[in-house]
Amino acid sequence: MDKLRVIPFGTSSGRPTATRHVSGLALDAGSDWVLVDCGEGTQQQVMRSPIKLSRLRAVLLTHLHGDHVLGLPGLLGTLAMEGRAAPLRVVAPAGVRRWLDTMLDLPILGLTFDLDVTELPAGDAADPASASAAAPAVELGTIAGFSVRADRLVHRVPSYGYRFVEPDRPGALDLDRAVALGLDAGPDLGRLRRGETVRGVRPDQVIGPPRPGRVVALLGDTTRAAASVRLAADADLLVHECTYAAADHELCDRWTHSCTADVAAVAAEARARHVLLTHFSARYADPERLVREVRCRLPAGSTATVHAAVENAPVDIPRP
Amino acid sequence: MDKLRVIPFGTSSGRPTATRHVSGLALDAGSDWVLVDCGEGTQQQVMRSPIKLSRLRAVLLTHLHGDHVLGLPGLLGTLAMEGRAAPLRVVAPAGVRRWLDTMLDLPILGLTFDLDVTELPAGDAADPASASAAAPAVELGTIAGFSVRADRLVHRVPSYGYRFVEPDRPGALDLDRAVALGLDAGPDLGRLRRGETVRGVRPDQVIGPPRPGRVVALLGDTTRAAASVRLAADADLLVHECTYAAADHELCDRWTHSCTADVAAVAAEARARHVLLTHFSARYADPERLVREVRCRLPAGSTATVHAAVENAPVDIPRP
Repeated sequence: MDKLRVIPFGTSSGRPTATRHVSGLALDAGSDWVLVDCGEGTQQQVMRSPIKLSRLRAVLLTHLHGDHVLGLPGLLGTLAMEGRAAPLRVVAPAGVRRWLDTMLDLPILGLTFDLDVTELPAGDAADPASASAAAPAVELGTIAGFSVRADRLVHRVPSYGYRFVEPDRPGALDLDRAVALGLDAGPDLGRLRRGETVRGVRPDQVIGPPRPGRVVALLGDTTRAAASVRLAADADLLVHECTYAAADHELCDRWTHSCTADVAAVAAEARARHVLLTHFSARYADPERLVREVRCRLPAGSTATVHAAVENAPVDIPRP
Repeated sequence: MDKLRVIPFGTSSGRPTATRHVSGLALDAGSDWVLVDCGEGTQQQVMRSPIKLSRLRAVLLTHLHGDHVLGLPGLLGTLAMEGRAAPLRVVAPAGVRRWLDTMLDLPILGLTFDLDVTELPAGDAADPASASAAAPAVELGTIAGFSVRADRLVHRVPSYGYRFVEPDRPGALDLDRAVALGLDAGPDLGRLRRGETVRGVRPDQVIGPPRPGRVVALLGDTTRAAASVRLAADADLLVHECTYAAADHELCDRWTHSCTADVAAVAAEARARHVLLTHFSARYADPERLVREVRCRLPAGSTATVHAAVENAPVDIPRP
């Protein structure tokens, strides 16, 4: 994949407003894309975006609160009406299978394709903090070309974040040095790239080390969590909920969400290059206030950039 | 109730488009309103309309297809977030309780109020035509001030239509005649209105017969059905699905929907005063074509008016 971007479909926490939608976000790798969370209205937001439902490879839900999942049944129904035959991978905390099965058993949907469902451990929802500390990360394998890991956040219901790692790219070839060592610019270089030693020149003499792929951390609802830092370590993009301003921190405690101070702490400790805020409480008319608060709380010298998600405004993730 | 209107929230059949929503319609009696069907996105359409979620008294679903029901969980969640305490009546074909119970059992919703669920018989879904003919109408009692009856339509899953009847109003008082008979304009008339004979004058000498309330028939997906005619008999407003143009009648048969000829036949036989078309297939860029087709197929001399539902455009239902 070369072009990589996220497209936020909804930025409102808990419930939609007349003009904003609830959670849903595409990680778009060009040929394939992955949907993380699917609140009500997500399918319509996809229709308004440049990406196609037919290229959807997987849906990863962070947690089973309505504002993050209630758009999934309608999206599945529309995929069926479009004639989808390919299985769709669905990853979500335990309980999702029972929810989907009830609907598949009623005439509500009319699926034409299989769901390949992975349930993540729900653990002890009554004690989310200890559940998070105790839960090991779950390696989900390859999804849409990414290596994906889930890790348990801290919310009042089991909630997960996902770390997407793009495959490494081959190292850069030093053409001048290759020619100086007596190699052709043509077939010799192809053989070197395949790992062969050519005319006594080893690949590592002219090809640099593999270049690591981009890392994108897409997190569900959470308070400040150790897992968030692990998921976002050196990420090229961290998408973090920012439900409240720092002054409303008591609401964070009550509803186990994050305020701007929480996001700044996680982003700084993880050394994320770019931070995208979302999941704003409807009490803030302008999320730019939250952006400024996060920026002010980053350590001096931080080069991280911080922005507010805007619905259906793609955010490119360039290579470092 | 004096002012009575419907507000269509969605007009698209099967799936939303980038600009149109799936089924949902308010019957608004001023102080209370009833929601008939609740496709995905309905709650947001309500937020964009002049009516308040807090005044919602009941949700009546016509059938359990996704495009008519998948907005209900999100709407319930939002009502809970708004702190609703009053029970909400829900009427729908059998199966709805299991669907809702699964969600209530998971953390998806977080309801703060009770659901008072009435399940309508699902009958023999494999043979919808005979199921419809055999099913007796279901009297639902009083909902938001209306006397409401459900009757079984003909669709590929159990589907119902609802007939709402406003209470009769007292007959008109002939003030001139009352005074000529020697009555006061004041307390005497109050006693007469309460049914008393005053100074030898009986109420029926000066008060006309009760004036019947308005009738509104709101129908679910269906082919041409005898129940539709019963539900819409002499209705002041009939809202009927009109998924296809007459030339696409084979699609009606395949999907058990109605075309313009079906709607015209039902409206004419029922003598509905006003017909509102909705549930348009996305294949028709302009539903005015369908309106013209229905009008042309009404019998000569019909005074029925026909219009296409427009999302969030209220349609007043004046007294005859």
